[in-house]
Amino acid sequence: MPSSVALRVEAIRAYLQSHQLDALILPTADPHLGEYQPENTLRVTWLSGFHGENCVVVITREKAGIFVDGRFTVQVKQQVPADVYDYLHMVNDCHLTWTMDQLPAGSRIAVDASLFGIRWYQNAETTFTSNGYELVSLPENPVDQIWEDRPAAPSAAIELFHNGGCSSLEKRQQVAERLQTNGLDATLLTQPEDTNWLLNIRGCDIPYVRTALSFGLLRKDATLELFIDTDRLPEGFAEHIGKGVNIHALTMMAEVLTESCRTAPKIQLDPNQTNAWLFNLLASSGAETVNGTSLCALARVRKNEIELSGMKAAHIQDGIAMCRFLAWLDRQVAAGHPHDEGTLADKLLEFREGVEGFVAPSFGSISALGPNAAMCHYHHDPKNARKLGQDGMYLIDSGGHYNSETGICGTTDITRTIKVGEVSDEQCRMVTLVMRSHIALDMARFMPGTTGMQLDTVTRQPMWQNGVNFDHGTGHGIGHYISVHEFPPRINPNNNHGALEVGMCVTDEPGYYREDSFGIRLENVLVVNKAVGTEAKLLEFETITFVPMDKRLFNPEMFSPAEKEWLNSYHSKVFEKIAPHLDEQDRQWLKQATSPVA
Amino acid sequence: MPSSVALRVEAIRAYLQSHQLDALILPTADPHLGEYQPENTLRVTWLSGFHGENCVVVITREKAGIFVDGRFTVQVKQQVPADVYDYLHMVNDCHLTWTMDQLPAGSRIAVDASLFGIRWYQNAETTFTSNGYELVSLPENPVDQIWEDRPAAPSAAIELFHNGGCSSLEKRQQVAERLQTNGLDATLLTQPEDTNWLLNIRGCDIPYVRTALSFGLLRKDATLELFIDTDRLPEGFAEHIGKGVNIHALTMMAEVLTESCRTAPKIQLDPNQTNAWLFNLLASSGAETVNGTSLCALARVRKNEIELSGMKAAHIQDGIAMCRFLAWLDRQVAAGHPHDEGTLADKLLEFREGVEGFVAPSFGSISALGPNAAMCHYHHDPKNARKLGQDGMYLIDSGGHYNSETGICGTTDITRTIKVGEVSDEQCRMVTLVMRSHIALDMARFMPGTTGMQLDTVTRQPMWQNGVNFDHGTGHGIGHYISVHEFPPRINPNNNHGALEVGMCVTDEPGYYREDSFGIRLENVLVVNKAVGTEAKLLEFETITFVPMDKRLFNPEMFSPAEKEWLNSYHSKVFEKIAPHLDEQDRQWLKQATSPVA
Repeated sequence: MPSSVALRVEAIRAYLQSHQLDALILPTADPHLGEYQPENTLRVTWLSGFHGENCVVVITREKAGIFVDGRFTVQVKQQVPADVYDYLHMVNDCHLTWTMDQLPAGSRIAVDASLFGIRWYQNAETTFTSNGYELVSLPENPVDQIWEDRPAAPSAAIELFHNGGCSSLEKRQQVAERLQTNGLDATLLTQPEDTNWLLNIRGCDIPYVRTALSFGLLRKDATLELFIDTDRLPEGFAEHIGKGVNIHALTMMAEVLTESCRTAPKIQLDPNQTNAWLFNLLASSGAETVNGTSLCALARVRKNEIELSGMKAAHIQDGIAMCRFLAWLDRQVAAGHPHDEGTLADKLLEFREGVEGFVAPSFGSISALGPNAAMCHYHHDPKNARKLGQDGMYLIDSGGHYNSETGICGTTDITRTIKVGEVSDEQCRMVTLVMRSHIALDMARFMPGTTGMQLDTVTRQPMWQNGVNFDHGTGHGIGHYISVHEFPPRINPNNNHGALEVGMCVTDEPGYYREDSFGIRLENVLVVNKAVGTEAKLLEFETITFVPMDKRLFNPEMFSPAEKEWLNSYHSKVFEKIAPHLDEQDRQWLKQATSPVA
Repeated sequence: MPSSVALRVEAIRAYLQSHQLDALILPTADPHLGEYQPENTLRVTWLSGFHGENCVVVITREKAGIFVDGRFTVQVKQQVPADVYDYLHMVNDCHLTWTMDQLPAGSRIAVDASLFGIRWYQNAETTFTSNGYELVSLPENPVDQIWEDRPAAPSAAIELFHNGGCSSLEKRQQVAERLQTNGLDATLLTQPEDTNWLLNIRGCDIPYVRTALSFGLLRKDATLELFIDTDRLPEGFAEHIGKGVNIHALTMMAEVLTESCRTAPKIQLDPNQTNAWLFNLLASSGAETVNGTSLCALARVRKNEIELSGMKAAHIQDGIAMCRFLAWLDRQVAAGHPHDEGTLADKLLEFREGVEGFVAPSFGSISALGPNAAMCHYHHDPKNARKLGQDGMYLIDSGGHYNSETGICGTTDITRTIKVGEVSDEQCRMVTLVMRSHIALDMARFMPGTTGMQLDTVTRQPMWQNGVNFDHGTGHGIGHYISVHEFPPRINPNNNHGALEVGMCVTDEPGYYREDSFGIRLENVLVVNKAVGTEAKLLEFETITFVPMDKRLFNPEMFSPAEKEWLNSYHSKVFEKIAPHLDEQDRQWLKQATSPVA
């Protein structure tokens, strides 16, 4: 009997045949092209069985191919039936070429353009056309016509958000001013983070992100066309978002945007975040599109005073939960309880659920013992989780979304590497180097205009001077009760995402990974402030995460006096801020965990 | 009686009239658009009396304007007669607008296009045309028709250079490979540094630069069209440069390049280093020009083993001269001799002339006492030079070109700040911070791909963390017996000039300047090497300047242990390398100048 995957692929082939099409190309994406997507858009998973990210499937009348990147070459074989799909490599095999190789010239290759970026679409169109193939942009997604028992679209009510610091109108005026300065008529908002921030609303439509799915077009007069699921608007929505917003169902986008292009034709969009269907729509409506990082995102990531105060309060609550967890962990290790990576992650979530304002995790925790920590994107597998007692070090990378009526409001992201067994001098040397790199960024000061690319080099000096490196960025922007990865701030060696500005929040998370052996990462969240009282007009960081670094893994002789001073001063602040919230047992634990390093 | 400047301007006006022209725009430049120019091209000086750099004069039938930048607003009034020229500001007043304001629409505005960059020319053409004016590119320079007693063109014989490390053919093949890799037919060589390096020749046609003026077109088959003053070629020139070079007089450029475009049309050029006459010539000859940093310069700045060994040997000789000078200076200060800034610079030149291989200074020394050192580009004025005895600190920034048959061959650039009187704790604090920043760059390690823009941020951390900054780049590339400022290497906050690569030589010269009070700069030359024996594939610097830093100006408590170790290790190497070349008195001086800091 054919597998359900085989039957689904056959159904797609029937669709192709009945529509005079020869192939379908389908990526793992929804129309926002974001990091996470709602269940009802997991079409690749439904059609192939594959659960990973960054994948493309191609179905022709005769063949099917699944293209995954290096992280998923093992997983794809376990999840996707080999008698239906050829396994292919996203980088080594070009899926456009592969598609053409399966088909005679003249074939019609179909896509749902709303799931592809502009650049992919334009490249595909050029490549196919110049080789005598035709790229067909479908008015519907074939999977949606066939998928029985398809999960419902997100249905939770959209939340009115009260911790945004200023009204939607003020925020819209702020972005509108940037539009005027840049000589633009409007900016296209494709990221739910932008529309949600701008309107002081939130939702829970996609995993780990506090947004309600929506699109928008904001004009230079601060008026907004909003496209959202109008069935889910709570009472008082219109009053909450204020004057100047026209609310439309998502299905009205084509009509409203086409009309809007007539009066506001010069439209900014971010080509990396705009799907080809939208771009083609604007282009055919006579818009003059201007590429650039969303002016709304540029305003959003410079958090206002209320947002920053909410972030700081959220990090105190998160610190309380983390300290309780770490104190508990030490006791469990001492008592020899062999908890596994999954239990540990669950226990931490339990502690977070016990503090004020916690709403949900901000991403899937990385809970990794011993060699598992050497995989930067490890996720514990219930069947193969490692247990306490096997390893010397435990890495836990986790975070939460917080929101309360008392102003605790923000998103957290923290990594600690903890001693849970015997460790070697070499491991302590590496933890100390990672700590020194962490401190290098935290202590950095910089002139306005300095980019994260420049500060990344400052961060890595302690490790580079000792001959070692780590193969990921040093840090990323982090949102205000919205999403844990916020663009454009980045502290990163490869790309220049612009200067760091006052009010931005970024993570500081250098690491070190030795394959099959151990992994280290130490992560706090920092806010960019103006330095006070200096001759040069400098910027500096303020640390807002307050959780001890595990001193038992340091070689104190490797620290400079300034680094030791930073560490002791940081730990004394941790005790000051967190101790009052702990019971006696945990406070005693925190006392020793934050005692000075000599 | 009218001044000679007035008469010359009148002669230009007569030329304009007789040629049906309404204005002439003339910049301080020669056709290479380089930093220095030969005397016979100092047309602005002849026509205005002005001796500064970066100036434009505009002569209409009625008016004349001279445009200078902020550095020269005082000087221009002293040197240029106010009854002939209006004084204007290069940045605040647009010279194109000013020109149009003096003239009715339809006027014909003339230029010698060979003295302007491509961007200037295209902008001027667009601006004039769109306002109804005509930009006229003259076939000759009007000044040259009028200038009696014009200095002769450079006449010294061109030198055959024997310390280049490999043959011209090998170098041409090396660049030709880069052309092939980049899919280019040829690269246009507008910088004498490129043609001279490529052909293993040198000259002394322009101040402070060891080049023979010349242009070239190098093809992907390693053949070269060379344009040079053929009257000055020494015996054996053709054999020396090897096969595949066609030698032409400079006057043949138009004809040869036009012809060459037919067979090698895809030509790389650096738009910042190519004059508009050349660009227009290529464009009208059907060339497809490709903008980019000269592939020849990119090969040249990665010095080969012989070039690096010559550079190191030159720095030892320069170190001997500098140490003799600094020892002498200390004795003069002790004896209370009130030498002035000019005498000190002359004395240093005398010491350089006394070591092996010295040929000429590599730039005009900055010899600055006390507050004069706060001006980064100070040049002592014989009439107003400050004298020893007035100030606490003396800054000397100088360098030399070296070339000998024994392989001492290179260019040096060194700055030291020396105690010559009483200094305050605050001054010592600032010198120590500058020293710490200097050490930060020297000790930096970095992954391949890291740019000077990133390393600049590493350099400034010690100063930024203490609230101060300096307003110039940290360092520049330095050439191999050719020119002291070498592109593209730069360690600089503003621009990204590509990654630092093995074999590049750069200066490390942070500073601190307090207006009207004092100035500090500490400069060594560094070579980029591969780090050996490290887990990550890193690059690092090797210091090749060996002259003590003045310890009397440090506050040793401000150094970290690693910085102190760097300093003591550096000084012990200075003693080891330089002491054997000094007499007993100077060796004793060096002994104490390099003794360890506790």
